[in-house]
Amino acid sequence: MGSESDMDIMKETGSMLKGFGLSFEFCIASAHRSPNFLAAYVKRTDAGGTKVFIAGAGAAAALPGAVAALTAKPVIGVPLASSSLQGLDSLLSIAQMPAGVAVAAMAIGPAGARNSAILAAQILALSDRRLAGKLRKFKIDQERKVAEKNRPGGKSSG
Amino acid sequence: MGSESDMDIMKETGSMLKGFGLSFEFCIASAHRSPNFLAAYVKRTDAGGTKVFIAGAGAAAALPGAVAALTAKPVIGVPLASSSLQGLDSLLSIAQMPAGVAVAAMAIGPAGARNSAILAAQILALSDRRLAGKLRKFKIDQERKVAEKNRPGGKSSG
Amino acid sequence: MGSESDMDIMKETGSMLKGFGLSFEFCIASAHRSPNFLAAYVKRTDAGGTKVFIAGAGAAAALPGAVAALTAKPVIGVPLASSSLQGLDSLLSIAQMPAGVAVAAMAIGPAGARNSAILAAQILALSDRRLAGKLRKFKIDQERKVAEKNRPGGKSSG
Amino acid sequence: MGSESDMDIMKETGSMLKGFGLSFEFCIASAHRSPNFLAAYVKRTDAGGTKVFIAGAGAAAALPGAVAALTAKPVIGVPLASSSLQGLDSLLSIAQMPAGVAVAAMAIGPAGARNSAILAAQILALSDRRLAGKLRKFKIDQERKVAEKNRPGGKSSG
Amino acid sequence: MGSESDMDIMKETGSMLKGFGLSFEFCIASAHRSPNFLAAYVKRTDAGGTKVFIAGAGAAAALPGAVAALTAKPVIGVPLASSSLQGLDSLLSIAQMPAGVAVAAMAIGPAGARNSAILAAQILALSDRRLAGKLRKFKIDQERKVAEKNRPGGKSSG
Amino acid sequence: MGSESDMDIMKETGSMLKGFGLSFEFCIASAHRSPNFLAAYVKRTDAGGTKVFIAGAGAAAALPGAVAALTAKPVIGVPLASSSLQGLDSLLSIAQMPAGVAVAAMAIGPAGARNSAILAAQILALSDRRLAGKLRKFKIDQERKVAEKNRPGGKSSG
Amino acid sequence: MGSESDMDIMKETGSMLKGFGLSFEFCIASAHRSPNFLAAYVKRTDAGGTKVFIAGAGAAAALPGAVAALTAKPVIGVPLASSSLQGLDSLLSIAQMPAGVAVAAMAIGPAGARNSAILAAQILALSDRRLAGKLRKFKIDQERKVAEKNRPGGKSSG
Amino acid sequence: MGSESDMDIMKETGSMLKGFGLSFEFCIASAHRSPNFLAAYVKRTDAGGTKVFIAGAGAAAALPGAVAALTAKPVIGVPLASSSLQGLDSLLSIAQMPAGVAVAAMAIGPAGARNSAILAAQILALSDRRLAGKLRKFKIDQERKVAEKNRPGGKSSG
Repeated sequence: MGSESDMDIMKETGSMLKGFGLSFEFCIASAHRSPNFLAAYVKRTDAGGTKVFIAGAGAAAALPGAVAALTAKPVIGVPLASSSLQGLDSLLSIAQMPAGVAVAAMAIGPAGARNSAILAAQILALSDRRLAGKLRKFKIDQERKVAEKNRPGGKSSG
Repeated sequence: MGSESDMDIMKETGSMLKGFGLSFEFCIASAHRSPNFLAAYVKRTDAGGTKVFIAGAGAAAALPGAVAALTAKPVIGVPLASSSLQGLDSLLSIAQMPAGVAVAAMAIGPAGARNSAILAAQILALSDRRLAGKLRKFKIDQERKVAEKNRPGGKSSG
Repeated sequence: MGSESDMDIMKETGSMLKGFGLSFEFCIASAHRSPNFLAAYVKRTDAGGTKVFIAGAGAAAALPGAVAALTAKPVIGVPLASSSLQGLDSLLSIAQMPAGVAVAAMAIGPAGARNSAILAAQILALSDRRLAGKLRKFKIDQERKVAEKNRPGGKSSG
Repeated sequence: MGSESDMDIMKETGSMLKGFGLSFEFCIASAHRSPNFLAAYVKRTDAGGTKVFIAGAGAAAALPGAVAALTAKPVIGVPLASSSLQGLDSLLSIAQMPAGVAVAAMAIGPAGARNSAILAAQILALSDRRLAGKLRKFKIDQERKVAEKNRPGGKSSG
Repeated sequence: MGSESDMDIMKETGSMLKGFGLSFEFCIASAHRSPNFLAAYVKRTDAGGTKVFIAGAGAAAALPGAVAALTAKPVIGVPLASSSLQGLDSLLSIAQMPAGVAVAAMAIGPAGARNSAILAAQILALSDRRLAGKLRKFKIDQERKVAEKNRPGGKSSG
Repeated sequence: MGSESDMDIMKETGSMLKGFGLSFEFCIASAHRSPNFLAAYVKRTDAGGTKVFIAGAGAAAALPGAVAALTAKPVIGVPLASSSLQGLDSLLSIAQMPAGVAVAAMAIGPAGARNSAILAAQILALSDRRLAGKLRKFKIDQERKVAEKNRPGGKSSG
Repeated sequence: MGSESDMDIMKETGSMLKGFGLSFEFCIASAHRSPNFLAAYVKRTDAGGTKVFIAGAGAAAALPGAVAALTAKPVIGVPLASSSLQGLDSLLSIAQMPAGVAVAAMAIGPAGARNSAILAAQILALSDRRLAGKLRKFKIDQERKVAEKNRPGGKSSG
Repeated sequence: MGSESDMDIMKETGSMLKGFGLSFEFCIASAHRSPNFLAAYVKRTDAGGTKVFIAGAGAAAALPGAVAALTAKPVIGVPLASSSLQGLDSLLSIAQMPAGVAVAAMAIGPAGARNSAILAAQILALSDRRLAGKLRKFKIDQERKVAEKNRPGGKSSG
């Protein structure tokens, strides 16, 4: 993530990844303030076997694109609403990538942070049957929980 | 893709996928106009081993989210600028997914169509060394081509 | 509605419907998180005689369109300001439907929630004289209440 | 509709209504340029048995709201992209109605014009079984046409 | 103004008008909820000698245009940030008038409310020398007050 | 107006003013490129008896506000769609004036250019009975012309 | 800056400038409310040797452009989020300058205020080796601080 | 600039720089497609004495920020309208830099391309009296040319 203050939102990603039993590490690295540190980090972890990069950033959110420029692994970008424009700037900075370098843009804020973990799990599950099973269960449980809210007593009418 | 008229842009995805040696099929299926056909298609191809879904759609672009609702495989969404709002509506409809169902949003239009193929390849390359090699070569070639435009004769100055 | 947290706003719809003497039921069903439950619910209630569907949802608000895809009954969509973009994303996701499937988009938030009940009543009143009378009285009362705010003592000037 | 130049788009509404066998009349009446004519027209046709009003307008599109202010019948608004802001102004002017007066906002432009006819038919079909049948057939045909585009020969793959 | 809740902002207009020694009256009248009352009010006060109309409204702010449709006197519109879109909808609904009916759009919120009084005074001052003098003094005082903030002690430097 | 290229739109203002029998002069003066010339022009014409200033400008349209800063006469601003943002930038730059200096913002482009002449005429008509009569006639004719489009033969139905 | 209330943000500029050892003075001067004072101030300080102007303003932020119109020195503009549109209006008013008069637009709010000081320092450092050294050190320190957040203990993983 | 297709606009920068007698070189280098080439280029030319960097880019325009991350020299960013969002994405990606790394954002498109050359000249003129003289002459000529358009024959009135 681009700055320490992004941790409030990006920890949502961490707890989802944990829930899927995936290992990960957090790194604070700014495309603008620490370009050399970022490049070294991406190259080192890429070589070290990192399979998916998730980058959360606000304002002119260059971080996801900067990571995608340096690795051929999948990169997921989470726009954060840290400027007064409430994340519209971050979303456009992350989604509107030029042809040739792809970033998977998520929703702005906590929803995007959580979904980045789900997408990462879905990617890894293509070669991990156990994880694929967990994801199918996650979807079924999710649907069941929504449905249960409408059981007698959980639903009002007039 | 959501309609026949989206083919003009989405064929960019096809030619990129071909370039990476990946097999794919096009399907026209609208989340709004053909929900049952879409559900049947997604369930059938998901069970049949499809690894990644790429969905291109314009306006209130519900297609990528509708696919992601029905499969636990990675889904990539390409916003198309088919309404008078020039794709801003499509981008928001694709990126702003609620927590629990992830769609990887690409850039609006042709750049997004091409990048959806790159991201799909990057995802598949995690368990395909040959493809991973192609992607690394793609990145190196891409950088080299940019650099070559600045060789003597290719660059002007004053 | 798409999630439990939408109830705060959508209960405005409920109290308006009650005021018009219309029966209704609330259902929590997400186009993205519970697509099968939603499809089953819409098909069952459609067959059961539901005359109008009102769907409230935020962010990439796919719910109203997903309902409209499954029924030929009138569908009213209420955009909710649940993301950081304050409902602009929801409004575009609901209003910008492709040709062939119609959703009646309301205003973002509480005003839209209340108006969805009024529109539903106006639709049902076409074949219900008593309800039509109530609606005409509602309009007259509404205008009278505005006018009364300007009676001597209720209006200031300088 | 608000001006003669809106006819290009609104004739889509007319041809859809004809397709459903519904009778209608076009009227050019501006909320801003002809408020008295508009009020007289709405009151006269409302009393004369008009069941649904469809109002198409561009820019600060006040027409749908002005009609809804004068009748308790359902009013459908079609935003037209006639200003340089490409219909965003029209959509907001039509959708963002205050609580108490409802307008059913459609998509900007031709899609909205066509859908306004579908919504009107769906409303009228609640008390017209024949029309309800036509609408169910319309939906089935629509889904079938989408599916047929994917028959052998109609679909390419790589 | 369109509703009682607009008074918080529109009283700024009142206190500015008082400061210029101009007489005025407040009226709550909604273009959507009380169209007949509004039309009667505008026609009566227009005939009664009202020289300038100031209309403040939020969301799909139809009030200023509705007033301008009914009188040939100057109409000033103040967009209020009463919806979740923070006044962008109101500004577009007020400013984007079609050719033929003019509304003088002010800034969103309190600044616009105050400026509507200044513009009204500037209009009336064209045939009122005393008022013209007050306005020139207002401008000079305003400039002086800004300048005084920079006197020794009022300005910091480093 | 701010530049020669604005003349295409602003000549609409001129022809409307001529239609009302009002005298005027065009001046090209940029708030940014010719601030001293602009200040001299505004001060000279203000002293010379100019009653209303109309300023058309595009992009960061500072001209109307710059004129309003220099005169206590009414200033009307016409946003022009000369940048790629299609006039949204101009509208915000003209409408969002700070409290203390008022500009009457019109619609973007030709509609605004024509309405600026109408508003100017409405302002001047407060002390010119003949002009007031012309304006009332203009409104009546305008309404009549709209109504005539709906005479037998001018209206189609189905 | 355009008003006293802008000081809260613009003092960030001051403290950054102090940190670089640069002398500066604050001035409150509005392009709209105090045009003559502003012109006098810019001309006097320009002649007096001011090397860079930094102008912070909100809403229709004309100040940076007004300064740039009066001096050939570099002008940096800081958009402030003082209106309900949260600085989008200010950013467009500052960035969308017409060809011929340049303003260096910064980010909206505190980030822009701080960066305006950095850009000013970078400009002055072109002819001040000591300052250039400070800036290089500032960049290195900034990168180091980001990197240190990832030292053992400062980074969590799962 | 980020791609060959940006040359159409950025050559405006070149011709302005030539007009001021400044030497420059064009380089095509993408922050996303050629990050290593870009880093090498910026470091080499920075060390080689380049005084000002001008970076033009479209869509998620990361180039100016990427250059600013790598050098302590002033960086000017020109947003280009190369995506369907017409440069709004580029402007936000360039202007909304985080605190700590400054980019001077220009207007979208040709106006910004020309102004980037003017700002560069203004920066360099702080330590180049001859250039400062040229810039003062440029401003005076610019103002004179505007004024001359209003000479008898060049101005129409009615």
